[in-house]
Amino acid sequence: MSTRRAETIAIGTELLGPDRIDSNGAFLSRVLGEHGYEVRFRTVVGDDPAELEEALGIALGRADLVVATGGLGPTVDDLTREAVSALLHLPLEEDAAILAELEARYRRHARTMPPTNRRQAQVPRGAEVLPNALGTAPGLLIRTDRALLALLPGVPSEMERMTRDHLLPRLDATGARRVHRVLKIAGTNESDVDHRLAEVHRSAGAVGWTILAGAGQIEIHLTEWVAPGAAAAGVERLDVAIARALGDDLFGRDEDTIEAVVGRLLSGRRETLAAAESITGGRIARRLTSVPGASGWFAGGAVVYTDAAKTTLAGLPPETLARHGAVSAETAMGLAEGIRTRLSASWGLATTGYAGPGGGTPEMPPGTVFLGLAGPSGTTSRRLLLPGVRPVVQARTAQAALDLLRRAALHAGNA
Amino acid sequence: MSTRRAETIAIGTELLGPDRIDSNGAFLSRVLGEHGYEVRFRTVVGDDPAELEEALGIALGRADLVVATGGLGPTVDDLTREAVSALLHLPLEEDAAILAELEARYRRHARTMPPTNRRQAQVPRGAEVLPNALGTAPGLLIRTDRALLALLPGVPSEMERMTRDHLLPRLDATGARRVHRVLKIAGTNESDVDHRLAEVHRSAGAVGWTILAGAGQIEIHLTEWVAPGAAAAGVERLDVAIARALGDDLFGRDEDTIEAVVGRLLSGRRETLAAAESITGGRIARRLTSVPGASGWFAGGAVVYTDAAKTTLAGLPPETLARHGAVSAETAMGLAEGIRTRLSASWGLATTGYAGPGGGTPEMPPGTVFLGLAGPSGTTSRRLLLPGVRPVVQARTAQAALDLLRRAALHAGNA
Repeated sequence: MSTRRAETIAIGTELLGPDRIDSNGAFLSRVLGEHGYEVRFRTVVGDDPAELEEALGIALGRADLVVATGGLGPTVDDLTREAVSALLHLPLEEDAAILAELEARYRRHARTMPPTNRRQAQVPRGAEVLPNALGTAPGLLIRTDRALLALLPGVPSEMERMTRDHLLPRLDATGARRVHRVLKIAGTNESDVDHRLAEVHRSAGAVGWTILAGAGQIEIHLTEWVAPGAAAAGVERLDVAIARALGDDLFGRDEDTIEAVVGRLLSGRRETLAAAESITGGRIARRLTSVPGASGWFAGGAVVYTDAAKTTLAGLPPETLARHGAVSAETAMGLAEGIRTRLSASWGLATTGYAGPGGGTPEMPPGTVFLGLAGPSGTTSRRLLLPGVRPVVQARTAQAALDLLRRAALHAGNA
Repeated sequence: MSTRRAETIAIGTELLGPDRIDSNGAFLSRVLGEHGYEVRFRTVVGDDPAELEEALGIALGRADLVVATGGLGPTVDDLTREAVSALLHLPLEEDAAILAELEARYRRHARTMPPTNRRQAQVPRGAEVLPNALGTAPGLLIRTDRALLALLPGVPSEMERMTRDHLLPRLDATGARRVHRVLKIAGTNESDVDHRLAEVHRSAGAVGWTILAGAGQIEIHLTEWVAPGAAAAGVERLDVAIARALGDDLFGRDEDTIEAVVGRLLSGRRETLAAAESITGGRIARRLTSVPGASGWFAGGAVVYTDAAKTTLAGLPPETLARHGAVSAETAMGLAEGIRTRLSASWGLATTGYAGPGGGTPEMPPGTVFLGLAGPSGTTSRRLLLPGVRPVVQARTAQAALDLLRRAALHAGNA
């Protein structure tokens, strides 16, 4: 299916240094793909007039659409307007409407516009001005003989808003568009998923199939080029086949997170959750409280790194600690039961383990983790041995604990 | 001071999509800069033979050093070797030593090497082979008439190790190197820092000066090109001047975090900390427990999103809640005192507020936050109005709370 060729150019010397990366490129690849433009090259170039002109010239020589971000501000480092003007032989002219809007914006904040900001009203002859709803630098759209050139601000929020409001509606929408779907998997590993999906994968045909593995989560990214007005039949067919093959291991799609899925399950059942975290040190609570409306189903949590906190805050019986130690199935279950009782919650979830570096015993090396889950029909524990350095073990434990709860809530009887 | 011009090229169609970004570029900018090579362009290109050749050709025509990452694996998508061979007219030849090493690696894992992996032993004539300590794809180093071309694996850990072990030692080290220092600031805003450092900034001379603002943290990045063997006199001079101008607002340098600084302060004073988090929902605990050795000074925390959790877990007197409400200075102080007493800690730190969206009152809009700090010499509170969407307000509150504690511990009498 024919697609148009796009390129993105990120402008700014700071983007070439060790401190920042061009995060705009990924957003542009997604939305341009959805509108039928495939990004073939991404370039980062500094605030150097000759190099900027060179990068723009190369891209305009081979692409149907070039989107350049950055270099539209008021300072002397902001050279995009001048480079485009020189490259395309379009003289810069002051745009009265932009100037009036800039001055009005300063007046609203009871300030006088610095003279340098006047530069932002300079427009290469013939360019269309794209309003900036969130900042001072307007965007510019220029049609050359063979390509469309969009100049957008570098600030991600301004760039994204301008792209959605003004650039995408101006693109030729008669070609194919790319549909993108992410399927999210927990509780297993990449080679297991590969194995169970081998047959489905072989049937993917023209649908793009990428598997990405993170800390305790695997994602399958499906992409399909679809004719205007048509449905993404291939993506839909594979989605059904993958869901059938993976069962409960598939926990969500696209923007879903395990914590959001857990929240929906608990809300639907009118149940609540309390957490007692030793090894995860607040990671479970942080993820749960990042879900809007969490106060409706998250009763609270205790971070119980020390023995004293385990008994005092989470109500672990001291004799459990004395008899079995802090890293044990019994302590994980005792913490889960203790915090559930203390906060009168439907479920209690607990973690304990050795995150490393150091610590552990010959029988329980760093990475050894116990999860405890207390619920309406009893208490269970689970032992894991997780790979990775300290923050990875902590993150994987939080993910595994949330997934344990998700599966239990999914299969519990009616509340 | 003269520097050499470098470019990086990240190879792989997946790097042009919406799911991944080229994270290797930032690492290469840093270490190449430290060795006297300034990255002027960064390009991302897909697994397309013609486009790959084009990108390599453009870079080799204008740079002293080109570092390309990716496309060296065994699959048919890995085309870097072929593109370089075609571009530079260097026939591919099988390297017996690489082949033997590949086969030995498979034998060690008791597997037979797939025939396709033999491709990884192909070397453009005259290229130097760079061993890969962590994977199968060896790197390649090629000297053209005017430039040095390094082909490295795309996997970050393999690329970084190979760069340090084999690429950097082969670079011409007779030129200037770049020294980079980050100064980290909390408790104020960018324009205040700008204002207080205006005079110091004007004296920066040839030292690069970049200011970056994040959620509740400001960083000043200083860079200086320094002759071989010389000290970074400009960076050192500015560091002293900035520290003098900012006083306690400067909390650290380079890899420092506020939580690590807090940990060092508390360890040194043999003091402990307990936290009761409403609006921050575990973010303070998570940051503290990410510091190795946190169990030595972090007594534990309570995540008290609900009223019941505030009284049950953190020991807030119910009458404080009834009289002043959950979002109030009194509740923040009561939570701090309650958790400090319950966990017998030297310090108690608490947060409460409206993170939004929604909630709040006409007097206390979303973003209204109260911090409470109970310590050896009494209890204080602080009210803030923080901008941003929900996760930003939560992150800024955690940062402000940790900074409040840092300043208190800095100025407390001897423990």
